[in-house]
Amino acid sequence: MQSLQQKASEWSGVDQTDAFAIDEINLFEKLGKQTFINLSTHFYNRVYDDEQEWFRSIFANSSKEDAIQNQYEFFIQRMGGPPLYSERKGHPALIGRHRPFPVTHEAAERWLQHMQQALDSTADIDSDSKTKMMNFFRHTAFFLVAGNEMKNPNQGVPPPCKHATSKTSTN
Amino acid sequence: MQSLQQKASEWSGVDQTDAFAIDEINLFEKLGKQTFINLSTHFYNRVYDDEQEWFRSIFANSSKEDAIQNQYEFFIQRMGGPPLYSERKGHPALIGRHRPFPVTHEAAERWLQHMQQALDSTADIDSDSKTKMMNFFRHTAFFLVAGNEMKNPNQGVPPPCKHATSKTSTN
Repeated sequence: MQSLQQKASEWSGVDQTDAFAIDEINLFEKLGKQTFINLSTHFYNRVYDDEQEWFRSIFANSSKEDAIQNQYEFFIQRMGGPPLYSERKGHPALIGRHRPFPVTHEAAERWLQHMQQALDSTADIDSDSKTKMMNFFRHTAFFLVAGNEMKNPNQGVPPPCKHATSKTSTN
Repeated sequence: MQSLQQKASEWSGVDQTDAFAIDEINLFEKLGKQTFINLSTHFYNRVYDDEQEWFRSIFANSSKEDAIQNQYEFFIQRMGGPPLYSERKGHPALIGRHRPFPVTHEAAERWLQHMQQALDSTADIDSDSKTKMMNFFRHTAFFLVAGNEMKNPNQGVPPPCKHATSKTSTN
């Protein structure tokens, strides 16, 4: 059976080493806190205004302000800065905390489109940092798709009901 | 609804600040790699020899060597050292990776007993570091119990079947 990280590499096209090249330098020290705040603000401004209702609705139960803070605190902690996320919320537990959401291949691709545009519209992120971050985000997005599929091994098809008397349509 | 970290604090008796006091100092620099290897070796020597078959069986599908390496690499990464775990396996994803296992209250307490004894039998861990680590472990163990219960919100009771014709007993 493929591991979570094998699936993440296969689906994202980003191998493990490139995904965690963010650890080769301290991106927090290089970019600074305000850049991370700006990035997450640009990202969620796009997400909460997404024209696709199916995607926007994934975020409907959180305020945009909370979503921004959760994200930049996690990014700062993961990329060499102080453990702001854990001080406030505990372990990142990425798969566990994404459990309520339908993290499909399509949702991962749309998340990544918004993130690429957010990176491109945030000042002071050099091209090497941008590449490292996108590789990390891309691998992580599909790691979460793999985690999501683990939650529903039957891909949403309910198990047969022992009380059923007639065959249900498959189309 | 209580969050994962609220449940972890309530069940463990360790509040968030004490749980993440491990981040106030760099425990990896203070203790060194070999101490973490020794700790995990002592811990899994106990676990794989546990007289209780129900507990020992949780670990039966991994080799002791793999279990030791996974644990000390995660501890080193989380406590200020190099990201050894992520380089090899990706995100810790604590809840996701514990999904296959029955992380009950009873299992958490038994894990913690073994860890307390492993800490006590590992040389060169000063008392302040030991307290910080046990608070982190205790909070984390019950964070995983909370994650485990999230996986089975109905505690194994299947949802009602729409084809059922007779009422099922509620007791």
